Amino acid sequence: MKFPFSILAALLLSACSGATLRGTGDLGIVIERAGGSVAVIDSSARAILGRVEGLGDLSHASAVYSRDGRYAYVFGRDGGLSKVDLLRRRIARRIIQAGNSIGGAISQDGRLVAAQNYEPGGVKVFDAETLELLADIPATYGDGSRRSKVVGLADVPGNKFAYALFDAGEIWVADLSKPREPKVTKFLSIGSQPYDGLVTPDGRHYLAGLFGEDGIALVDLWKPEQGARKILASYGKGMEKLPVFKMPHLRGWAVAGGRVYLPAIGKHEVLVVDSATWQEVGRIPVKGQPVFVMARPDGRQIWVNFAFPDYSHIQVIDTLEQKVVQTFSPGKAVLHMEFTPRGENVWISARDDNRVLVYDTASFAKLAELPAQNPSGIFFTSRAARIGF
Amino acid sequence: MKFPFSILAALLLSACSGATLRGTGDLGIVIERAGGSVAVIDSSARAILGRVEGLGDLSHASAVYSRDGRYAYVFGRDGGLSKVDLLRRRIARRIIQAGNSIGGAISQDGRLVAAQNYEPGGVKVFDAETLELLADIPATYGDGSRRSKVVGLADVPGNKFAYALFDAGEIWVADLSKPREPKVTKFLSIGSQPYDGLVTPDGRHYLAGLFGEDGIALVDLWKPEQGARKILASYGKGMEKLPVFKMPHLRGWAVAGGRVYLPAIGKHEVLVVDSATWQEVGRIPVKGQPVFVMARPDGRQIWVNFAFPDYSHIQVIDTLEQKVVQTFSPGKAVLHMEFTPRGENVWISARDDNRVLVYDTASFAKLAELPAQNPSGIFFTSRAARIGF
Repeated sequence: MKFPFSILAALLLSACSGATLRGTGDLGIVIERAGGSVAVIDSSARAILGRVEGLGDLSHASAVYSRDGRYAYVFGRDGGLSKVDLLRRRIARRIIQAGNSIGGAISQDGRLVAAQNYEPGGVKVFDAETLELLADIPATYGDGSRRSKVVGLADVPGNKFAYALFDAGEIWVADLSKPREPKVTKFLSIGSQPYDGLVTPDGRHYLAGLFGEDGIALVDLWKPEQGARKILASYGKGMEKLPVFKMPHLRGWAVAGGRVYLPAIGKHEVLVVDSATWQEVGRIPVKGQPVFVMARPDGRQIWVNFAFPDYSHIQVIDTLEQKVVQTFSPGKAVLHMEFTPRGENVWISARDDNRVLVYDTASFAKLAELPAQNPSGIFFTSRAARIGF
Repeated sequence: MKFPFSILAALLLSACSGATLRGTGDLGIVIERAGGSVAVIDSSARAILGRVEGLGDLSHASAVYSRDGRYAYVFGRDGGLSKVDLLRRRIARRIIQAGNSIGGAISQDGRLVAAQNYEPGGVKVFDAETLELLADIPATYGDGSRRSKVVGLADVPGNKFAYALFDAGEIWVADLSKPREPKVTKFLSIGSQPYDGLVTPDGRHYLAGLFGEDGIALVDLWKPEQGARKILASYGKGMEKLPVFKMPHLRGWAVAGGRVYLPAIGKHEVLVVDSATWQEVGRIPVKGQPVFVMARPDGRQIWVNFAFPDYSHIQVIDTLEQKVVQTFSPGKAVLHMEFTPRGENVWISARDDNRVLVYDTASFAKLAELPAQNPSGIFFTSRAARIGF
């Protein structure tokens, strides 16, 4: 069998050009909600490298990463779980694992991907390589006839996942050391209607915000025998008359310098809490109702975006001065922010402008403006190396 | 021009097999001192993928990573700076930049690699892409006729590098925002003979251990106008009669849960310091003179190795209980440890056994034993995403 050289050359090229040999440490994705696609981004070049389509309903979608940084696991609202290959820029695997889902997490060892589901309520755990179902943990409560919506799923050390049951008012910690034999520890009566949760960056404390009452439920995972307790009893709608336009994201809480910065619900304030005592130690006035309150990786700055009608603005708090030092308007509907791993830049989604913006966090200069279709969440591969994402 | 199919197939293979398409988030290197080589490792497969040779004198060598995780910059003792391509497993570039060198750092934005040199004393800054020299900052002091050895070089936010001048007793912070026009801020008379330094994980505090006197020099980089101050005045050899077998590595200090854990010099103790007040709050007795005192990424455990004659042992401190909970002997001469990014495993160099060992940090079970030639430092690519490495 003989081939002319031109065909040979074309074959050689196509054999190798399916993807470029490159590191994955500076890659990420932007969720493009309207089109059911993700844009693959490069934080060194400040560029969009390409798109992967066919991911279904991506409203409220989020993503976690394989421990090698090559694959993003994208959790769609429609129960779709897609494993996206960032190097080949295509879907490696995709399953529909539930009817209505709201995010997921990846285990400490990177071998298990867990999805938290509204319908049917519970957590499903998949093999990160194959997406084979390994464990199905229904969120059954009360007399055993009902299943709760699951929220606030987070990985914690020891190949465990912590999460909250909205309808049951419980916090569960599932130990997946043996993936097909999950062991569940339940914290009952933690408060009414936990609507979101997070684990602190050290994986020690799990917190669930409560919708049905004021306050926050807290479990010290290093001292589970102490059970759950309530902190910040005045946290919530309380006496406030302002309508709540959007429940803030707890996952956007910031921990910096021994303090936790969190959005006040329905108020134009960021609350400051001492992370040793869990007592409120201050309030910082801001422009609107905060949604995400995120710390630059060094903890010197806290960046805040807002609910409607103030969602065109960003404010930056200096943690040393404990006050707002910068206010600007990057676009009409600022939905999300993500810092580069060491914090020199921040990427911002301006949904209605169909743009992703990159800013220098020291000078606040705009460094790049990239086209994206109704961008929302931005996720860098450096999340693979962090606890509680 | 025609080719038989077998040649075509071979060409196709060789065109693509120079390297495997893969993520770089779970890669790393082990320094093989005796052979002047590094072993490229995979923390998911717990395997050695291959070797890169020809790196010169690697005694006391260390490494930092490009922000994409593809390249390791290896600093040799002989002044060699090698850029190693982990995917192709070969040297991409190599220069001899000094006569006697002791490590380096990479800037926050990943564009600058800095080397700290004993001879000629100073810091040189290179383009991370090309290794072109961009800035040469001689460590000139006193009447301007002498140059000091430089130690404790660390990156800090703002594309700055902080380091100490051993002979001059000074701490310098070089701002490389404009790489060819470095601006240096000097802290004079910080103490006698700083022998190593580190920056806290948030990039805020720079500490330099003193060889010529007791105590540690501290600069709050967020408040440089306050100058340097001395902390832990009793830290040092003090009244102790034990000989010091090896100066401990400050870079191995651990910060966990608002406390700093550091090796006592010449004593069989780990010191515990409150990172808010910088006061000593405790001492934990250990088996020998500690060298590296390293926190598992979640801060629950502190792993300690020791100087001769106790260097066959490892001890693990539980930070909740503040005491040693595990003692074991992985090999004859344990030189270094490195945690996987989320802390489920630790990799340990046992130099005289020519082995690298992988342990589960929850069960302390040995998971793998890998052959390496006189292994010393172990460095994972996840360092690229961290401040102060």
